[in-house]
Amino acid sequence: MAQKLWEKNVQVDHEVDIFTVGKDRELDLYLAKYDVLGSMAHITMLESIGLLTKEELNVLLAELRNIYAVADRGEFIIEEGIEDVHSQVELMLTRRLGDMGKKIHSGRSRNDQVLLDLKLFTRSQIQELVELVSGLFDVLISQSNRYKDVLLPGYTHLQVAMPSSFGLWFGAYAESLVDDLQLMQAAYRICNRNPLGSAAGYGSSFPLNRQMTTDLLGFDSLDYNVVYAQMGRGKMERTVAFAMAGIAATLSKLAFDACMFNSQNFGFIKLPDQFTTGSSIMPHKKNPDVFELTRAKCNKLQGLPQQIILISNNLPSGYFRDLQIIKEVFLPAFDELKDCLRMVTHMMREVKVNEHILDDDKYSLLFSVEEVNRRVLAGMPFRDAYKQVGLDIEAGKFVPSKSVNHTHEGSIGNLCNEPIATMMRSVIDSFSFERMNEAEKKLIHG
Amino acid sequence: MAQKLWEKNVQVDHEVDIFTVGKDRELDLYLAKYDVLGSMAHITMLESIGLLTKEELNVLLAELRNIYAVADRGEFIIEEGIEDVHSQVELMLTRRLGDMGKKIHSGRSRNDQVLLDLKLFTRSQIQELVELVSGLFDVLISQSNRYKDVLLPGYTHLQVAMPSSFGLWFGAYAESLVDDLQLMQAAYRICNRNPLGSAAGYGSSFPLNRQMTTDLLGFDSLDYNVVYAQMGRGKMERTVAFAMAGIAATLSKLAFDACMFNSQNFGFIKLPDQFTTGSSIMPHKKNPDVFELTRAKCNKLQGLPQQIILISNNLPSGYFRDLQIIKEVFLPAFDELKDCLRMVTHMMREVKVNEHILDDDKYSLLFSVEEVNRRVLAGMPFRDAYKQVGLDIEAGKFVPSKSVNHTHEGSIGNLCNEPIATMMRSVIDSFSFERMNEAEKKLIHG
Amino acid sequence: MAQKLWEKNVQVDHEVDIFTVGKDRELDLYLAKYDVLGSMAHITMLESIGLLTKEELNVLLAELRNIYAVADRGEFIIEEGIEDVHSQVELMLTRRLGDMGKKIHSGRSRNDQVLLDLKLFTRSQIQELVELVSGLFDVLISQSNRYKDVLLPGYTHLQVAMPSSFGLWFGAYAESLVDDLQLMQAAYRICNRNPLGSAAGYGSSFPLNRQMTTDLLGFDSLDYNVVYAQMGRGKMERTVAFAMAGIAATLSKLAFDACMFNSQNFGFIKLPDQFTTGSSIMPHKKNPDVFELTRAKCNKLQGLPQQIILISNNLPSGYFRDLQIIKEVFLPAFDELKDCLRMVTHMMREVKVNEHILDDDKYSLLFSVEEVNRRVLAGMPFRDAYKQVGLDIEAGKFVPSKSVNHTHEGSIGNLCNEPIATMMRSVIDSFSFERMNEAEKKLIHG
Amino acid sequence: MAQKLWEKNVQVDHEVDIFTVGKDRELDLYLAKYDVLGSMAHITMLESIGLLTKEELNVLLAELRNIYAVADRGEFIIEEGIEDVHSQVELMLTRRLGDMGKKIHSGRSRNDQVLLDLKLFTRSQIQELVELVSGLFDVLISQSNRYKDVLLPGYTHLQVAMPSSFGLWFGAYAESLVDDLQLMQAAYRICNRNPLGSAAGYGSSFPLNRQMTTDLLGFDSLDYNVVYAQMGRGKMERTVAFAMAGIAATLSKLAFDACMFNSQNFGFIKLPDQFTTGSSIMPHKKNPDVFELTRAKCNKLQGLPQQIILISNNLPSGYFRDLQIIKEVFLPAFDELKDCLRMVTHMMREVKVNEHILDDDKYSLLFSVEEVNRRVLAGMPFRDAYKQVGLDIEAGKFVPSKSVNHTHEGSIGNLCNEPIATMMRSVIDSFSFERMNEAEKKLIHG
Repeated sequence: MAQKLWEKNVQVDHEVDIFTVGKDRELDLYLAKYDVLGSMAHITMLESIGLLTKEELNVLLAELRNIYAVADRGEFIIEEGIEDVHSQVELMLTRRLGDMGKKIHSGRSRNDQVLLDLKLFTRSQIQELVELVSGLFDVLISQSNRYKDVLLPGYTHLQVAMPSSFGLWFGAYAESLVDDLQLMQAAYRICNRNPLGSAAGYGSSFPLNRQMTTDLLGFDSLDYNVVYAQMGRGKMERTVAFAMAGIAATLSKLAFDACMFNSQNFGFIKLPDQFTTGSSIMPHKKNPDVFELTRAKCNKLQGLPQQIILISNNLPSGYFRDLQIIKEVFLPAFDELKDCLRMVTHMMREVKVNEHILDDDKYSLLFSVEEVNRRVLAGMPFRDAYKQVGLDIEAGKFVPSKSVNHTHEGSIGNLCNEPIATMMRSVIDSFSFERMNEAEKKLIHG
Repeated sequence: MAQKLWEKNVQVDHEVDIFTVGKDRELDLYLAKYDVLGSMAHITMLESIGLLTKEELNVLLAELRNIYAVADRGEFIIEEGIEDVHSQVELMLTRRLGDMGKKIHSGRSRNDQVLLDLKLFTRSQIQELVELVSGLFDVLISQSNRYKDVLLPGYTHLQVAMPSSFGLWFGAYAESLVDDLQLMQAAYRICNRNPLGSAAGYGSSFPLNRQMTTDLLGFDSLDYNVVYAQMGRGKMERTVAFAMAGIAATLSKLAFDACMFNSQNFGFIKLPDQFTTGSSIMPHKKNPDVFELTRAKCNKLQGLPQQIILISNNLPSGYFRDLQIIKEVFLPAFDELKDCLRMVTHMMREVKVNEHILDDDKYSLLFSVEEVNRRVLAGMPFRDAYKQVGLDIEAGKFVPSKSVNHTHEGSIGNLCNEPIATMMRSVIDSFSFERMNEAEKKLIHG
Repeated sequence: MAQKLWEKNVQVDHEVDIFTVGKDRELDLYLAKYDVLGSMAHITMLESIGLLTKEELNVLLAELRNIYAVADRGEFIIEEGIEDVHSQVELMLTRRLGDMGKKIHSGRSRNDQVLLDLKLFTRSQIQELVELVSGLFDVLISQSNRYKDVLLPGYTHLQVAMPSSFGLWFGAYAESLVDDLQLMQAAYRICNRNPLGSAAGYGSSFPLNRQMTTDLLGFDSLDYNVVYAQMGRGKMERTVAFAMAGIAATLSKLAFDACMFNSQNFGFIKLPDQFTTGSSIMPHKKNPDVFELTRAKCNKLQGLPQQIILISNNLPSGYFRDLQIIKEVFLPAFDELKDCLRMVTHMMREVKVNEHILDDDKYSLLFSVEEVNRRVLAGMPFRDAYKQVGLDIEAGKFVPSKSVNHTHEGSIGNLCNEPIATMMRSVIDSFSFERMNEAEKKLIHG
Repeated sequence: MAQKLWEKNVQVDHEVDIFTVGKDRELDLYLAKYDVLGSMAHITMLESIGLLTKEELNVLLAELRNIYAVADRGEFIIEEGIEDVHSQVELMLTRRLGDMGKKIHSGRSRNDQVLLDLKLFTRSQIQELVELVSGLFDVLISQSNRYKDVLLPGYTHLQVAMPSSFGLWFGAYAESLVDDLQLMQAAYRICNRNPLGSAAGYGSSFPLNRQMTTDLLGFDSLDYNVVYAQMGRGKMERTVAFAMAGIAATLSKLAFDACMFNSQNFGFIKLPDQFTTGSSIMPHKKNPDVFELTRAKCNKLQGLPQQIILISNNLPSGYFRDLQIIKEVFLPAFDELKDCLRMVTHMMREVKVNEHILDDDKYSLLFSVEEVNRRVLAGMPFRDAYKQVGLDIEAGKFVPSKSVNHTHEGSIGNLCNEPIATMMRSVIDSFSFERMNEAEKKLIHG
């Protein structure tokens, strides 16, 4: 039976208790550090409005710093019979400090406390994601530059179409990540607003100083309207999930290409043997399971926004316990995406490319457009050149010239990896991680 | 480093190993019993085609029965460093029986072995679901009969519309469950076909007797075509997820009604205090969290088919490692739905209904259609009666007669709970649980 | 301004009018025939309980038959300013018959009328789908038999794995359709129940004879409970959408295979030129757009259940106007799926298969398992044979024997197309189309 | 039979033709203006690199401006037998200018042409959405200020919880729109990059000047990498759909509140009669269909990203015809969302609020937290005050003081509508609509 902050004189039915606590005790471990951080900021503000004495504040802060250190070392646990992280922290405080420990809850509800924990956790996870994306970006750009002269068949409709290159292929996924972070930045801004002080969603009769906690926690601004702050539960998660789905879509597509390029029917890339897996029945197999699993995990992640929508949709304004279930799908998703990012970075660094793909005759039609364009540049109208070359091909008379001379921005001969990298740096700079980290450090170290 | 059935002379990269094994070691525990069952049937068949001797068969069967008993007691574990359930079972056999233990793998691939495990597990879970649905159905029918005379406002557009009753309300959800099981029965039939013998999806050059394992395992029939059998991975899960989503939708709607009816603005039903939860900030709250969590969990479950579709869609035929990720979302979903079914059954049994709802004047317009119909039965065309009563209401002259006299099938006065229960029994009888249970018992007890 | 059955003395705001009527005037054309059919059954019943005279019934029936004929010829229109199909039919009746025309509405609400129309329409569409699926099945089985000896590489992880055949490939999709119809049959049963008489969702004080309309319309049974009957709105569509998504998934996968097999990197199948499309820029292209569009349309259809869930979820019991929007996504979906079925049938009949695929050396490793099994049959434990062959391959010493001798059920040499066809016939026979068609014919022709 | 740019000497099968053209002829009308704009920029650039003469450019520009004017007047049509907008424009040019008309296609593929059209169309639609959102925001803020003193029960768990106000309620949705536009701004930036010059996804051997077309069309920058530019198809739509889903979620929640508040069981707001609809059977009904339809349409829109994901997911890089189907769901979605925005703005302006809600005794417990806080401010620890007030309520001894004194940022007494409006203006200013409009004007007027 989990201990509850709100229990009065009727004992909750045991089955109901287990059902309602659900996975909170396990999931709240993700939030422990942030719950403590939020409490530090909250009580610092409480002292400023006279709801705590200076002495009480100092004692409480010292003890919270101890708990933070425990959580930071990964040693925080929610004891058997304790409902959630908030109850556990209060319990640890009251064990050491008696009734004074209860005072950290004044002027808050669990509603705004959870909202705050989720936002502090999420913005920190976003920082980790951005760093991993940035690392993958660097590898992709570097491989794009390294293999810029290795040609590859370009496909449309999965039909051999026009010459492409590994420079283009690696670089395309790098540029894709720039746009993905653009979306993540919007999600970060929506996340990086302070809901603390909205209490149960209708504010408080205490003269809270919400700007003060906003500054202490290094938020960009407040979620001003308290009803809106509460509405952010579910909305923040959904928005961040959109942005995670964006990154996941890029990784999934890259993984799809890699699986296909690695097939004997393509043979464009190869993973070193120690990165492949075998079959229990076929002795010759070297399977690209890492790419398949990346694809599947990322496809699963692309369903995350829809899951959150299903859980939170068609509810009127105001808190509902339904929102708790979002934690089950949202909190673990960051580790899943980070794992995929790390694995793809690892693979992209190690992948071997086949430098002689176009020697194979089945790719000679790749060069038909080059031939059309050559005739156009020699003065023939495009439609006529197109028709002539088409008829030559039908008649088996087409002889490709395999030289490629593409010069415009973003083409085989002019990848523009420099301006792409500039865009990337500019997007990353637009996150306000520094302020956020500074503020947290100050709270933790006093 | 997990031990692998397929490892040759190159050691797999450690990060890759962790990433590819993923949650298999934890998720495969759901499948342990069924993996052993499947192996028993498989080797019995192997003996019949001369790939095992009678003596080997008996020794192996005895040992597998021991392992089954361990799994049945919930004590089966996958040891550190072992990749999955199949490897663990083989390891346990070879520890006791030496090389003979390796022979259970002849004529199988892990692909058809997992397919089989999933189907055996799923059909057993479906049986549990059907039993829980049946239990909830009985409670709903019994409450429908008990409260058949207690009236309730019926709403359309959430506007007070026409008289309804608790008899109708409870009974409606009962009848909904009949259709939900109709869908589940189709999913069960699709699940209850034997994929064993499809090997890696292309069959085997061994002269397997697939009809024999079909009979031994109590399947309705074979997945004949081996390429189709492999295609069933993902498809079976998706189809069962559709049917689970159907049940979840019924529970979610019931929970939505219950949350609303329990609000002070309705006051139609009340949960005993020990089934409600409080607020950490508002001392007067008695919240219906069980219904909110049921709704949210069931809404999450309604997203399950889409998750499976996202993971498995746009892959060509043939096995892909992607399919492993479906287990992460599919296997735990049964417990989630079963929990919700148990909790709703518990609540529906204990819920108190307000027997005096219609005394409140705001519900008097409920009876306007009765008045219209009275005039129609007295000879006035419907459209005219409708207009007259409407004008009376506008003019404040409408006086309701609160007696309700509905007699047709399925109406307040004639609930038809009997024929609904008959339909339910007939749907439940159409599952072939008995054959399946008999077959399993025979394998386990020899 | 659309004319409304319910308008009293306040005129609806023009913008609101346009917004609320939405696409009903266009979508209701799908329902016209069925609306008339439903009215015929309804008034026949009304006469039996004394709400119409025999003469009135005959006059109204005759006129409704005229309107049915108009709709059947595709000439039914909803006039400018008329809100929906129900208003249009009433208008046509009152123009010819005066006030008598209004009497068809007694004992009904638009709610149960729409429910009925949707169910009559849907069950008829299901019949068309089943016929098209059956036609495609026949083509697939026939191609499977025709090409049963043409080998194909079987892939796992998109890596060359084991021998497969066109017999298996065509046959797998045929068998998949059997299971798809199994699911459709459950959806049909849920659809094929009579909601008429539930009125606005709470029944009627008229002594309606709902069994009579059930019989007249050839339904399997009633939706008994009137509250449940109303709950069927959205639920029926969702369930049928699940079943449509099942068929769509099979077609999508087939189309994916076809696109891939048609690529120069595979070259397994070829579409005749007149079934391919070209490129505006590359003169050599012959693109398999039909398969790509089939895949995309079917993938879109796989999202249909989720759309319906999003629209109808988290609404309490009782009618809401929200449900109207489901028509926008549900009604046109049948034509989309039927188009895809027709197109795939057309393509599967015309597709050319490459009979010499395995001559290419890159497929020789396909036969490694055959070699392993050969050694096992000669007495070597499986794990050892597996290891030996694996080492031979690494050392370049593996020489494949390209003969395939698979004999078990569902394998290359024993496709089991006969029992698969038997299952198909048995599933199709379990739909009650005959009763439904008989009943409709009787109503139409008197 | 639609005329095709790529047709050679084999005529396409008629069924295939109809199936592949699909809804393009109808959907491409959305794109006509933008296709012409794109061509103007393209040929201006072609002249600069010597692929057109100055004279040809002027003649072509003049003719394209005529066509633009036709499209701008809504009179552009795609003639019977013409495949798509690109073919129709070329046809119109060659009719007037002969072979010169064909030259606009040099250095382009239909792939980058469609990409460009979609981006030009979408960024323009985003501008319209932003303007409508801004209009709704103003109405909400104005109503928030107007009704800032009208109290409302605040709910948690749909249980009466704490005092709220119409000031908070209207203001919350206003602030929600700020975050929604934040997300839309990211989508806009991703959209507002130039794909032209990527040709079929692999660039061109012509010395295109892509920066020049970027400037001419007023884009923020290029999609540099040509493979990435092609990858933007589907990705751009998905991202914009995320942002549309965000706005839709806000509207849906607002509509849900409005439907509920309008019920007799709440009676918080009322729509003027001319904005409500009636029932065909119940003469007293005044239904809030506009809000229900808004909710449903917006819930449907929240499924849009998932539809796009389903269609475009698990495809390797490079163009596929699948992407055409995205147009079916994406292009019409803007009108749907704009309709909802207009309707909600209209309703929010006209809605009447009940100024005496809290007179009803069932809301007296709203003030329990105020009482707790009063005791805390008087020195009692929070947990004890909470317990005492709870026991008073149980004992029926709780007497509420109905005055509310909330002063902190975002609370009833301090709505902070000013800083919220400042945030809104700042977000709107961060779109680069001006540059985009200037550039288009310059192209159109020369």
